[in-house]
Amino acid sequence: MAAALLGRRGWSRVRAGRACRVGERSYAAISGALERAVSAFRAVTGDEGVSLGVAIREQHGRDESVHRCRPPDVVVFPRSAEEVSALAKICHHHRLPIIPFGTGTGLEGGVGAVKGGVCFSLRNMDRILDLHPEDFDVTVEPGVTRKALNSYLRDTGLWFPVDPGADASLCGMAATSASGTNAVRYGTMRENVLNLEVVLADGTVIHTAGKGRRPRKTSAGYNLTNLFVGSEGTLGVLTKATLRLYGIPEAVVSAVCAFPTVQAAVDSTVEVLQAGIPVARIEFLDDVMIDACNRYSGLSYPVAPTLFLEFHGSERSLEEQVAVTEDVTRGNGGADFAWARDAGSRTRLWQARHDAWYAALALRPGCKAYATDVCVPLSRLPQIVVETKEDLARNGLTGPIAGHVGDGNFHCLMVLDPDDPDEVQRVHEFTERLARRALSLGGTCTGEHGVGLGKRALLREELGPLAIEVMQGLKATLDPKNLMNPGKVL
Amino acid sequence: MAAALLGRRGWSRVRAGRACRVGERSYAAISGALERAVSAFRAVTGDEGVSLGVAIREQHGRDESVHRCRPPDVVVFPRSAEEVSALAKICHHHRLPIIPFGTGTGLEGGVGAVKGGVCFSLRNMDRILDLHPEDFDVTVEPGVTRKALNSYLRDTGLWFPVDPGADASLCGMAATSASGTNAVRYGTMRENVLNLEVVLADGTVIHTAGKGRRPRKTSAGYNLTNLFVGSEGTLGVLTKATLRLYGIPEAVVSAVCAFPTVQAAVDSTVEVLQAGIPVARIEFLDDVMIDACNRYSGLSYPVAPTLFLEFHGSERSLEEQVAVTEDVTRGNGGADFAWARDAGSRTRLWQARHDAWYAALALRPGCKAYATDVCVPLSRLPQIVVETKEDLARNGLTGPIAGHVGDGNFHCLMVLDPDDPDEVQRVHEFTERLARRALSLGGTCTGEHGVGLGKRALLREELGPLAIEVMQGLKATLDPKNLMNPGKVL
Repeated sequence: MAAALLGRRGWSRVRAGRACRVGERSYAAISGALERAVSAFRAVTGDEGVSLGVAIREQHGRDESVHRCRPPDVVVFPRSAEEVSALAKICHHHRLPIIPFGTGTGLEGGVGAVKGGVCFSLRNMDRILDLHPEDFDVTVEPGVTRKALNSYLRDTGLWFPVDPGADASLCGMAATSASGTNAVRYGTMRENVLNLEVVLADGTVIHTAGKGRRPRKTSAGYNLTNLFVGSEGTLGVLTKATLRLYGIPEAVVSAVCAFPTVQAAVDSTVEVLQAGIPVARIEFLDDVMIDACNRYSGLSYPVAPTLFLEFHGSERSLEEQVAVTEDVTRGNGGADFAWARDAGSRTRLWQARHDAWYAALALRPGCKAYATDVCVPLSRLPQIVVETKEDLARNGLTGPIAGHVGDGNFHCLMVLDPDDPDEVQRVHEFTERLARRALSLGGTCTGEHGVGLGKRALLREELGPLAIEVMQGLKATLDPKNLMNPGKVL
Repeated sequence: MAAALLGRRGWSRVRAGRACRVGERSYAAISGALERAVSAFRAVTGDEGVSLGVAIREQHGRDESVHRCRPPDVVVFPRSAEEVSALAKICHHHRLPIIPFGTGTGLEGGVGAVKGGVCFSLRNMDRILDLHPEDFDVTVEPGVTRKALNSYLRDTGLWFPVDPGADASLCGMAATSASGTNAVRYGTMRENVLNLEVVLADGTVIHTAGKGRRPRKTSAGYNLTNLFVGSEGTLGVLTKATLRLYGIPEAVVSAVCAFPTVQAAVDSTVEVLQAGIPVARIEFLDDVMIDACNRYSGLSYPVAPTLFLEFHGSERSLEEQVAVTEDVTRGNGGADFAWARDAGSRTRLWQARHDAWYAALALRPGCKAYATDVCVPLSRLPQIVVETKEDLARNGLTGPIAGHVGDGNFHCLMVLDPDDPDEVQRVHEFTERLARRALSLGGTCTGEHGVGLGKRALLREELGPLAIEVMQGLKATLDPKNLMNPGKVL
């Protein structure tokens, strides 16, 4: 019951479309503290490192989701971990919430200032600090984005493969446990962070694996690195990340294949994985999504359940991967297998996949999109996708489906009119049904977008009250004043 | 200073070779509580589930390390998570330490009852509960060993690849964040546990990813799974683990190659990884180790720095992996490249590698062995191995080297006479120097054996006092009475 209420409250903000306020302390009550804090901030960062401007604050109070909340009271722009620490100490002294901000490309309202407070924009901390090509690792500051890193790495023969679509900051990706299209081969952020520098709520600076350390494996004490990966800014501010790198594959081949049914596409996925094919990407798009992509990107793929695939390896190993995969898909009734070997046609293909969000939005101009994010065991995918498509049809909702099918993770890109309260309510109820369907099949309500604002009630259903109590205990230990991104996750 | 003292205290136990006592509460003080607890235990498990016998207790107070400590006061043999929970509640009520015990194959003294208390032997919980071949996952009780699982899986085309050498229990492997020879390709326990059932110190049962859930990826709240993986029984008793499985490769090829120098062997490793060869195992053995293996296993490998390699894949992909690897090793002066394609010669080769421990012991009959476990960035391996060999020679110590070179992790198998206090002291000082050498090169003192009793002081040096404080805070939150495997890790 409480769960349902919380959920509705979250969505009512969407409906209202304006700033809201959650929590015990009002803005007025903290404004005196805020004034004193702002002077102290200026002493740390200089005047240019502190902004009270409405436009800047608005811009730092939202991400790419439909969640809308009040902007922070002030935005600070630290240039180093030392400045982050000094600023955090000031916030701690004045009991002001701290909300870390990377690029604002999150999808679950993780940067909204639900209790007001101070947004720490990390965009000025954008140095790539330590590249060790022979050790396959690099250390970056939190403002470095995925594309900036890969562009920096271009001549080294190495790359960082985790790709959530958006050009997110790498520490933001770590904070939400992001993954994306390459996870089936290269893992998520959980598997690719070796060490983190973290500023805790009281300004203490820790290194989760020890300062400057970068062994590829360790069993030295509790795994603090993976406690902060996925903590969505609620346990500390990530100020440095040491990441695993990979050799750029000698050759890359992509392919598209249409199937008679969802089941046939998923069966092909399982068989490709069972055959030990180290597929780099295996993405599912349903008929509605393909149709939208065709329209948006001027393509002409058959309108049917479809797999987009990518293989990485040497020229010779690719031949074999391709041959086995063609066998598998043919055996499952796959047709129109189209290979893209040259960079141009590969880029066109993956551009279409990456533009799925915009293609979905283009189905109903003027509308907003919200992406669901359930993840289930592979064998349950056909059932949940079929039931979900029926649910969409029954409720007259637009929700093309795209998914990282190799991981059992898929998104319904819900296109809705935020000014139509009835539709907003129907979408809300649909997403709750979808999440519960995933939970009943042994899955999760959030494969890679995190919990943020909107999935706190579902998280409790997913994990049970006792595991949530453990998480609350961890939060209280690391952030006893509840200053770190309050109102998120738990 | 405190660090050095702790370290010496640990080793003094080795020297004394007898039971010792650490902590504030003496055995006498808890014996009344113990008596009442034992009656309560019997009500839970029946008489056969509780043992006070000296031999059973002795057997459950030690692992395969040189650390010797007092045995537990009593050993209980629960048959279910419900029984573990009921027993934990009794311990909690009477403030008795709880020490989880799998197979006793640990290498850092993790099962010693340093404060007395109750050993929870999990050997009677050995059911394989849920196998989902199409989802590549399985759920096991804590007494199931690695070999038992793989034997159960034999006809499914799947296997669990993490292989620390010993036939350890899978939950014990999770508890110490074990890895071993296959980690370079398949990851460690950190990457291969999807969900854990855990009984906390007060008997509460939680599921780290939610009861019955097994999505291949998730971003649902804090990563509790990886907080318990590697916690060495100090945060809770693992009573179920859901594990990732992999397809058994179509073909396997092994190889041995000798090199003129350590540098040449490591350079070959880096180049193989850079070339994107998905090598399954790449193990380094130094000249002393090879010589010991030759003697012990009746082999005749050239006495030189050597790589043992294994490749998994399809027949065709193996041809290519083999060809590229031969190129790489030849370019680095590798000679005598010997391929083992048939199962018989492969088994002989890897048997020699797995027998390294016994081969080392056979160098000095009647002695004991202690394995160091540092892990450094790949590029630092040649330097640390060369310096370490010089150190061994300078101090007249026997320490053949075997290592998981693809991860930068290697072991000196120190063979020592436990009754020679001078040698024990020299080995102790050597292992501290080696650990500090690894720390100074950006590495860790423990790649896969955990912290246990012996590396607590080094852990503090490695992570710094602030990260240790965070870990202590987490421990105090989950186990406020310090009952879970006290005296370990922190």
